[in-house]
Amino acid sequence: MSEDLVGNALIGQSGGPTAVINASVAGVIAEALNNNEIEEIYGTLNGVLGILQEDFVDLASESQQTIRGLKHTPGAALGTCRYKLKKQADFERVLEVFKAHNIRYFFYAGGNDSQDTADKISKLAQEQGYALRVIGIPKTIDNDLAITDHCPGYGSVIKYISTTVREIACDNEAMGQHDLVQIVEVMGRNAGWIAAGASLAKRKDHPHDAPHIILLPEVAFSQEKFIADVQRVLKREKSCMIVVGEGLIDADGNYVSAAEATDAFGHAQLGGAADFLQGLIEQNLPGIKARTVKLGMAQRAAVHAGSKTDVDEAYLAGQAAVKAAINGETDKMITLLRGDHDHYTVETGLAPLSDIANGVKKLPREWINEDGISMNHQFVRYAQPLIQGETVVPYDNGLPVFAKLEKVRVDKQLAAYEL
Amino acid sequence: MSEDLVGNALIGQSGGPTAVINASVAGVIAEALNNNEIEEIYGTLNGVLGILQEDFVDLASESQQTIRGLKHTPGAALGTCRYKLKKQADFERVLEVFKAHNIRYFFYAGGNDSQDTADKISKLAQEQGYALRVIGIPKTIDNDLAITDHCPGYGSVIKYISTTVREIACDNEAMGQHDLVQIVEVMGRNAGWIAAGASLAKRKDHPHDAPHIILLPEVAFSQEKFIADVQRVLKREKSCMIVVGEGLIDADGNYVSAAEATDAFGHAQLGGAADFLQGLIEQNLPGIKARTVKLGMAQRAAVHAGSKTDVDEAYLAGQAAVKAAINGETDKMITLLRGDHDHYTVETGLAPLSDIANGVKKLPREWINEDGISMNHQFVRYAQPLIQGETVVPYDNGLPVFAKLEKVRVDKQLAAYEL
Repeated sequence: MSEDLVGNALIGQSGGPTAVINASVAGVIAEALNNNEIEEIYGTLNGVLGILQEDFVDLASESQQTIRGLKHTPGAALGTCRYKLKKQADFERVLEVFKAHNIRYFFYAGGNDSQDTADKISKLAQEQGYALRVIGIPKTIDNDLAITDHCPGYGSVIKYISTTVREIACDNEAMGQHDLVQIVEVMGRNAGWIAAGASLAKRKDHPHDAPHIILLPEVAFSQEKFIADVQRVLKREKSCMIVVGEGLIDADGNYVSAAEATDAFGHAQLGGAADFLQGLIEQNLPGIKARTVKLGMAQRAAVHAGSKTDVDEAYLAGQAAVKAAINGETDKMITLLRGDHDHYTVETGLAPLSDIANGVKKLPREWINEDGISMNHQFVRYAQPLIQGETVVPYDNGLPVFAKLEKVRVDKQLAAYEL
Repeated sequence: MSEDLVGNALIGQSGGPTAVINASVAGVIAEALNNNEIEEIYGTLNGVLGILQEDFVDLASESQQTIRGLKHTPGAALGTCRYKLKKQADFERVLEVFKAHNIRYFFYAGGNDSQDTADKISKLAQEQGYALRVIGIPKTIDNDLAITDHCPGYGSVIKYISTTVREIACDNEAMGQHDLVQIVEVMGRNAGWIAAGASLAKRKDHPHDAPHIILLPEVAFSQEKFIADVQRVLKREKSCMIVVGEGLIDADGNYVSAAEATDAFGHAQLGGAADFLQGLIEQNLPGIKARTVKLGMAQRAAVHAGSKTDVDEAYLAGQAAVKAAINGETDKMITLLRGDHDHYTVETGLAPLSDIANGVKKLPREWINEDGISMNHQFVRYAQPLIQGETVVPYDNGLPVFAKLEKVRVDKQLAAYEL
């Protein structure tokens, strides 16, 4: 137990939202209110942008009902950003704002770019001798953060996608008098975690259930093999369901149908993999109908089909972040550790932010079957516990009801900052 | 009460599946087993194709658990088809098969093409003096059948879409530091019923909630107005959500981005409206990000987000079909009649199949606001009751469990038929 550090806490959200990133915020708020060391609990609007611009809201003034509602509200209630702190002046400004508001605890929910930002803020505070505890909270549907067993957000997205695949499979079978290829495009930039998760749609001991072909960035895409795979499935099943991640890569390491644009972090903006495959099928297999579904942002917002396990773990990660900081930890991210039992258990751990910041967790090659288009029992054993239980969402007038923060502003202390 | 007609019953499914077409089959089976006039209850596999080929299954031999499971199973459990009976010999074959299996009751769940087929079968039986009672069961997510207040399948599809729109709206607001246009493409060939249904996503008294722009085939598409509308919404909201039906039509009556292909009934195969709009925005509004979601077949299969009202009415329509036939009705379709009360009530009625077969129910122009891109309170009053209540789906191991028919075959009595 380190010495007490009394001051205010700040929570921010960064990167693409997930179905459960707000549950982490709810966990932080609930736990922060339990501790005397934390005097005020603020939220920064749109992540680091809100810090630079002093756009803080007072989270303690929100109703308990609203905070409870965050556990099943998609998006990022505080707003998020993809803004990258570029120049030294940005980091100096962050510390200046922290000092002005006596921020001593900083919690940042995000992926590896966000944890990198948190790490740099933490390091600068240490250099300057400003007492600050920085704890990251893992968040990404991509499930590609290093060290942690899995990431909050992942269980919900693969539960939604597997549900959707299982439903569309019923539809395709019904239309079974014609050969039909169904292509479902899902997210996942550099790793096939999300597409792989669709394999949970197969019933136990039914390897020929949909999805029949899963295309992963880990396996170089070959047009010839793909067409042969589709033909083989159609011969056996009459319909063929393909799940493809947006980050499909050919043997030369190039994205298949990548667009020109890149985002603020230099990542290629992907999309169009399903359309590309549809074209391939129509050119190479005349008479075969190919149809596409592109789940887009719907998949990361689909709280209505979310995983209770995922929500609970996201909330737990938020609570654990506060507990760790109160205990004197800093410059670390909360990780999820899986127990060694036959039944699934999880507890939280800590890992240095710098180890998270630049690592990427690859989908293990040995979890992909020899055929390169399906997952084996090791993957299923890993992923299936993450989708257990159904998120309970309140409905009103036939639709889910989501929480909206009041966003009571905290008075600014400093002059405006030029971005 | 007409004289008793004793014999076997046949139920078939036709056209595109909905989330609740299997619930209608469950209703038919449950009610058929209550009546002594019906000796055997058969299902035809893939609609009229199964009749031509004598592909019948014995539905009484299915477990009660399976039949109950049909109430929340997507697709069409008996299989469906888009095959059109073309030549007189096809119709003669249908009657020959009916006679061989002593089919005296024929129930056909489908849209207007399917009701047209049922009508022709019924008329030929009358001409030939073969006692047959034919009752159609309405089915279409398109909600475009004449006379009936609404169609089973519609409530579930708009509940799913409205849920998805409300969820994506949270995500878009979270990313609100940049201008973002989100385009959600939904089904709907000639009428805007499905796209219009997305307007239920708006909270009461929040006209600026998403969706901000609904594009309907009833309103001629103008590129200039569209770009101006998007600009106006972005200025006000920072993000703009568009819901577009696949059947977008320009001032000359041509489909926007229609593909060349047509289906077996001569309908243009649509798709690509969202991609077209994305291109328009990127060309005309430089720097604005536009993202697309294409729900495709997921929307008509989404039992997990289905409407309990819709399931119950689909089941009721199946039961009512059997009751009507037993009462001596024939050559009619079950309709849903809305009560005149303040609170929503529904009962079933009957309409001649020929009136259904060639009619199309248009979305009333007076339910569309002056702006041409939003729906007024009359539409909301019409549609909101249809999405009330949540379908209860059993889950196992984190995913919904769907019923699969055993499909015990009925012995064929006739020589094979050349299609």
